[in-house]
Amino acid sequence: MRKPYSRSAPFVLDDAAAELVDRYWRAANYLSVGQIYLLDNPLLREPLKPEHIKPRLLGHWGTTPGLNFIYAHLNRVIRAHDLEMIYICGPGHGGPGMVANTYLEGSYSEIYPEVSEDVAGMRKLFRQFSFPGGIPSHAAPETPGSIHEGGELGYALAHAFGAAFDDPDLIVACVVGDGEAETGPLAASWHSNKFLNPARDGVVLPILHLNGYKIANPTVLGRMSDEDLRSLFSGYGYDPLFVEGAEPFAMHRHMAATLEQALQDIHAIQQHWRNGGTDNTCPRWPMIVLRSPKGWTGPKEVDGKMVENFWRSHQVPVANCREDGNHRKILEDWMRSYAPEELFDENGRLKQELRALAPVGARRMGANPHANGGLLRRELKTPAIEDYAVAVERPGATTAQSTKILGQYLRDILLLNQSHANFRVFGPDETESNRLGSVFEVTDRVWMEEIRPYDVQLGRNGRVMEVLSEHLCQGWLEGYLLTGRHGFFSCYEAFIHIVDSMFNQHAKWLKVSRELAWRRPISSLTYLLTSHVWRQDHNGFSHQDPGFVDLVANKKADIVRIYPPPDANSLLWVADHCLKTYDRINVIVAGKQPEPQWLAMEEAVRHCEAGIAIWKWASNEGNSGEPDVVMACAGDVPTMETLAAVDLLRRHIPELQIRVVNVVDLLALQSREQHPHGLPDDVFDRMFTTARPVIFAYHGYPYLIHRLTYKRTNHDNLHVRGFIEEGTTTTPFDMTVLNELDRYHLAIEAISRIPGLLEKAAHVVEALRAKLDEHGRYVREHGEDMPEVRDWKWEH
Amino acid sequence: MRKPYSRSAPFVLDDAAAELVDRYWRAANYLSVGQIYLLDNPLLREPLKPEHIKPRLLGHWGTTPGLNFIYAHLNRVIRAHDLEMIYICGPGHGGPGMVANTYLEGSYSEIYPEVSEDVAGMRKLFRQFSFPGGIPSHAAPETPGSIHEGGELGYALAHAFGAAFDDPDLIVACVVGDGEAETGPLAASWHSNKFLNPARDGVVLPILHLNGYKIANPTVLGRMSDEDLRSLFSGYGYDPLFVEGAEPFAMHRHMAATLEQALQDIHAIQQHWRNGGTDNTCPRWPMIVLRSPKGWTGPKEVDGKMVENFWRSHQVPVANCREDGNHRKILEDWMRSYAPEELFDENGRLKQELRALAPVGARRMGANPHANGGLLRRELKTPAIEDYAVAVERPGATTAQSTKILGQYLRDILLLNQSHANFRVFGPDETESNRLGSVFEVTDRVWMEEIRPYDVQLGRNGRVMEVLSEHLCQGWLEGYLLTGRHGFFSCYEAFIHIVDSMFNQHAKWLKVSRELAWRRPISSLTYLLTSHVWRQDHNGFSHQDPGFVDLVANKKADIVRIYPPPDANSLLWVADHCLKTYDRINVIVAGKQPEPQWLAMEEAVRHCEAGIAIWKWASNEGNSGEPDVVMACAGDVPTMETLAAVDLLRRHIPELQIRVVNVVDLLALQSREQHPHGLPDDVFDRMFTTARPVIFAYHGYPYLIHRLTYKRTNHDNLHVRGFIEEGTTTTPFDMTVLNELDRYHLAIEAISRIPGLLEKAAHVVEALRAKLDEHGRYVREHGEDMPEVRDWKWEH
Repeated sequence: MRKPYSRSAPFVLDDAAAELVDRYWRAANYLSVGQIYLLDNPLLREPLKPEHIKPRLLGHWGTTPGLNFIYAHLNRVIRAHDLEMIYICGPGHGGPGMVANTYLEGSYSEIYPEVSEDVAGMRKLFRQFSFPGGIPSHAAPETPGSIHEGGELGYALAHAFGAAFDDPDLIVACVVGDGEAETGPLAASWHSNKFLNPARDGVVLPILHLNGYKIANPTVLGRMSDEDLRSLFSGYGYDPLFVEGAEPFAMHRHMAATLEQALQDIHAIQQHWRNGGTDNTCPRWPMIVLRSPKGWTGPKEVDGKMVENFWRSHQVPVANCREDGNHRKILEDWMRSYAPEELFDENGRLKQELRALAPVGARRMGANPHANGGLLRRELKTPAIEDYAVAVERPGATTAQSTKILGQYLRDILLLNQSHANFRVFGPDETESNRLGSVFEVTDRVWMEEIRPYDVQLGRNGRVMEVLSEHLCQGWLEGYLLTGRHGFFSCYEAFIHIVDSMFNQHAKWLKVSRELAWRRPISSLTYLLTSHVWRQDHNGFSHQDPGFVDLVANKKADIVRIYPPPDANSLLWVADHCLKTYDRINVIVAGKQPEPQWLAMEEAVRHCEAGIAIWKWASNEGNSGEPDVVMACAGDVPTMETLAAVDLLRRHIPELQIRVVNVVDLLALQSREQHPHGLPDDVFDRMFTTARPVIFAYHGYPYLIHRLTYKRTNHDNLHVRGFIEEGTTTTPFDMTVLNELDRYHLAIEAISRIPGLLEKAAHVVEALRAKLDEHGRYVREHGEDMPEVRDWKWEH
Repeated sequence: MRKPYSRSAPFVLDDAAAELVDRYWRAANYLSVGQIYLLDNPLLREPLKPEHIKPRLLGHWGTTPGLNFIYAHLNRVIRAHDLEMIYICGPGHGGPGMVANTYLEGSYSEIYPEVSEDVAGMRKLFRQFSFPGGIPSHAAPETPGSIHEGGELGYALAHAFGAAFDDPDLIVACVVGDGEAETGPLAASWHSNKFLNPARDGVVLPILHLNGYKIANPTVLGRMSDEDLRSLFSGYGYDPLFVEGAEPFAMHRHMAATLEQALQDIHAIQQHWRNGGTDNTCPRWPMIVLRSPKGWTGPKEVDGKMVENFWRSHQVPVANCREDGNHRKILEDWMRSYAPEELFDENGRLKQELRALAPVGARRMGANPHANGGLLRRELKTPAIEDYAVAVERPGATTAQSTKILGQYLRDILLLNQSHANFRVFGPDETESNRLGSVFEVTDRVWMEEIRPYDVQLGRNGRVMEVLSEHLCQGWLEGYLLTGRHGFFSCYEAFIHIVDSMFNQHAKWLKVSRELAWRRPISSLTYLLTSHVWRQDHNGFSHQDPGFVDLVANKKADIVRIYPPPDANSLLWVADHCLKTYDRINVIVAGKQPEPQWLAMEEAVRHCEAGIAIWKWASNEGNSGEPDVVMACAGDVPTMETLAAVDLLRRHIPELQIRVVNVVDLLALQSREQHPHGLPDDVFDRMFTTARPVIFAYHGYPYLIHRLTYKRTNHDNLHVRGFIEEGTTTTPFDMTVLNELDRYHLAIEAISRIPGLLEKAAHVVEALRAKLDEHGRYVREHGEDMPEVRDWKWEH
């Protein structure tokens, strides 16, 4: 902040300035209405005719004038104090306002030159909105200055905090709608203030915009008294400042003074902390509660029904303008009430004195590089994975906890990127539980509430973000990535479903962003799903669900990757690879418990680069022709059980020719036309054969494997075992038995599927079945797995 | 409440009563520790030996003593005032406490007689906990008195309010953990007070249990000052009462007095409202903030590290009791500190004076029928669907909005069940938008904040629950169903993903409940997903996602059903059917826009009962042999496009033999071994042929159809089209074109797949391609679909 804040008297917006900001606001409102309604005649230079009006009126007015009001006032303070500021538009349907404002400030036409700053450009601006081949009605990737899609509500504030972390000069103005404020994720997001450090982070200025109504209802917060609102937000730890009213000039003066006060308070807090203040509690940041009418400045009444300041203004306040002359008259009067001739010059360009109100260059919120984070992104420095390699002399000889090894690698990423302060680890209170605890050798959990003498691994400057809300973790991380940084999210596998919908929306954001050349790539969002379905020993059924990847596999192929690495070294390769990618969502599934290690680092690298490979060391097929059976596996536990099954088969039926195939890049199972990583058909056919039985042990729901491979030649011979929703709190091996994914079931299935073998090997099947019975008895008596299972080792 | 509350002086718990309640609490704590640790020697009648201790210690102590403390005090007030009360245990790992308390009060042994009230039973009680074949470590369906699984956090309070609605005599004590309090859904749930009517509903008494720590972190709310907490909960609209401390007897006295005060306040509010009070604002209900140490009464320190009152007590406070004599000593001292000999008699039964503290019969929280809602459930009265039938003289001749018709049916369900007050409609502010508005002819949206003169369809006694939180809608509905009532949830299709994880957990609850004979069936949870992917005209990509059903299809077959009815009459049958089922989750997908109607009611009934059927009226195959192609469809828009494609094919290539198959019960596509509704293989083969091409137009992601049919004979000839994530704000028909699900693409695909036809019909393909081009030009110029598409009618 180059220009200091006055600390003496409250700021007063003089009349001339109020007049100007009001005209600017009117210009934005005019352009917003125009987008919703007009095909032509953008400046109303002739009377409005039916053919000027869009045949389908699709858009939302209600929230827009308030958003425009805020934008105009933020412009003023950006100029006054030379602020680095971005605008997050929480209200879902604020698209027309965001587009209008970026058009007014010039950033829109810079990105989309065909939407020029003249009459022809304004006509295009209007026409394209909610029109086939045009732009959506929300703030979206297409909208300059946006890092937040306004479709699904609830994530504005979490995105805002994510953007503010580690960016000390940034102010994120975040408008929260009162509809959105009813959602769970938003209600929890207010507590983000407990994780923001005034010394090293930027700041979020929340603006709760109460316009009182949703689609067809009052809002819960809109009908609360000021007293309750003040209590609520004081309780959340803020200092709420109220701006309420409907009379424009009073509101301009009130908003300007309140914004100045908020910025002054922010500045004071930052100065205090940056000059060595070390309060043992969170600062009380300001926030603004703005009460303004829904559909402000729009038609007061249509067909005798109240519209302004009511939910009827939510969408298109006056609907039949093409057919109904009275409605058209209401629209025309409404648009002319903004006096477009006072706003735009004869060429249709915003008048000079109004243009002068917008910030310039990268200070414009539509051109601020923070909202196109790829522009600011620095490559993440990563250490050599070989430095963390688990020594594996021969397959299965070593035991290790995969995620624990990964924790060491993550620790060193934190170290290597310390000076850039652009990497954080996110997770809901589970970093340690997920065995990534090595990161605490070099950093803490960030915590801004009281820290007590006996607390451990807790600090003001921690780079591990833990809060018991998957929504917050995901939202913060998205905001952090979208503003050009890097991160890593570890989560219990089952509970990642909590953010299914956020994942969906982020995938959509990426899909659209990648189609926009001006949007620069951002770092991928990488999940580690651990504490997975097969090892819920002390949690049970409620914690078992491996279905997140099914959702992921629905998304556009070039956006998503799914990796279930079989051991620690392959996990290292996968994590390292994922962290170096951009514009993707990577899902890694790996266990945290001690498990046998199969691949030395060199082999792991080769295996992971291939994505799917035959494990020759585990196979006993001859060099010529095809094996009798392919034992395929994906995921750490299924890999172990498959190898144990192969061990059983080789001992019991040595003449059997077995091929072992391991899958580490799950989407490589798809054909290449479906996914860029898809194995070519001929390679797939050679690997999985075209006619031999394939017994596939898979980590998750078995259907996914069928769905990925249905186009493959040998699909009819593919027999998949996975999680079939059996088992609760029990031993690790018993979980696999209950779901029939264990070594005995796999071996029996192989024998049953090989033509003619079942008759010859009936005694083997009998012996294996007896083992299953023995297991059942043992585990129920002793509460742990029988020694021959626990102590099993691969020894071929 | 039969015994009135004293209104004069604060309640004082006398010393004798405090001594008794303390012993009761100790007994529960003793049994909780025993469950976590002991295999044998349950009453410590000999010194603790390694073999008495479980080999794998899996359980959670930290939250348990607080839960036991609350339970003991709730028992006291239930007896004192003859209260109808249930206990919702929000903290995830409170299982040992809930089990211990239901065992102490006798309800556990009534349900599970083998866990008897003697030494042998106690030994079983201990052994079964977190043990293979035993019970999970959470409150779960297996736990008497529970309607809430303690696995995934966030839904306790929403469940509690759902249970309280329409049950005026019920008090739902809901313990919210401070970990859970950080989640989004819980943070939003506090606002449920704005939807609870003191005159007709019961009440929730929230008890925020701040024990300060999660797995490895302080909690956000635990570290907040009392002042901030008071502000926060006052802001939410409550009157927070604080109980804080660690000294047991002071805490007993404080808790008893506070509970009395809370109940008195509740009583006063209820009396006021039930005697005609009509305040234009919510009452300020009491809530309790209980601060007590995590791991209270457990080991203070282990291996020199602080355990009690810190996160180290979260799970198993002292871990190596089998191997390490010192640890075993800590455990033994800890258990003996409760003085089991003062608690249990020589037979291992709770001493008589302590037994007398528990309520009796159905007043015991473990035996209260509200927590086994099927016991209280009355059948829903439903009108005859024929009364709402859309007249369909011939297929396609009529147009109707399916959900609008359904709204009339729902309206009359509301009327028919008015006197039982056991049916509500839930949705996030979308009942009207989803065209179910007819319900407002007979009821309102319930609203307990201020109602203004110009508000419409808003009232204190409304039976439509609207809040902009899918989490709250789902949580309330679950609580309502679990306590024996009925409901209906309508939601935008894309945003139902917000509750993916809640759906998962409810499906798990049902799966386990169905295995427990004592749990009586509850009504099914029925979703209507509308405003679906194909008609997001003014929303666009962010609102497009038909993938919820993919998640649903992962669940146990006997729990889930998925229906995409093709028109209004079939929607009526499906909804009526779903509302009469129990212990299931039904997903109905149907559009809200005007669409052609295909089936008269009689035909719709026949079709829906079959689940999948050949539409003879749309087919032109001869009577003998197989058609050239099967045109299959599922969902309203795909059905329309399929019929339009068939129309094109029949006009262009009249000699082509076409069969039309429509699917209304999606899971019938699976084989019968996979799903009880699965079509038998021979029927399927006759319907879909064994070798002819099948062009399948499906509502959602095409993979689901492959996954459901991969075992079917003709799977290799199945070509599925569906949503492939293309399109944003555009016209309805353009959406289908962008995803290649439109009539032209379908017709071209059929021609291409019929052996030998492509060469002969190249000119037809060319004509169809030209139509696609024409469409593209038209829609981009006019912003609406070309007349020949808009006006198309089935006329065969």
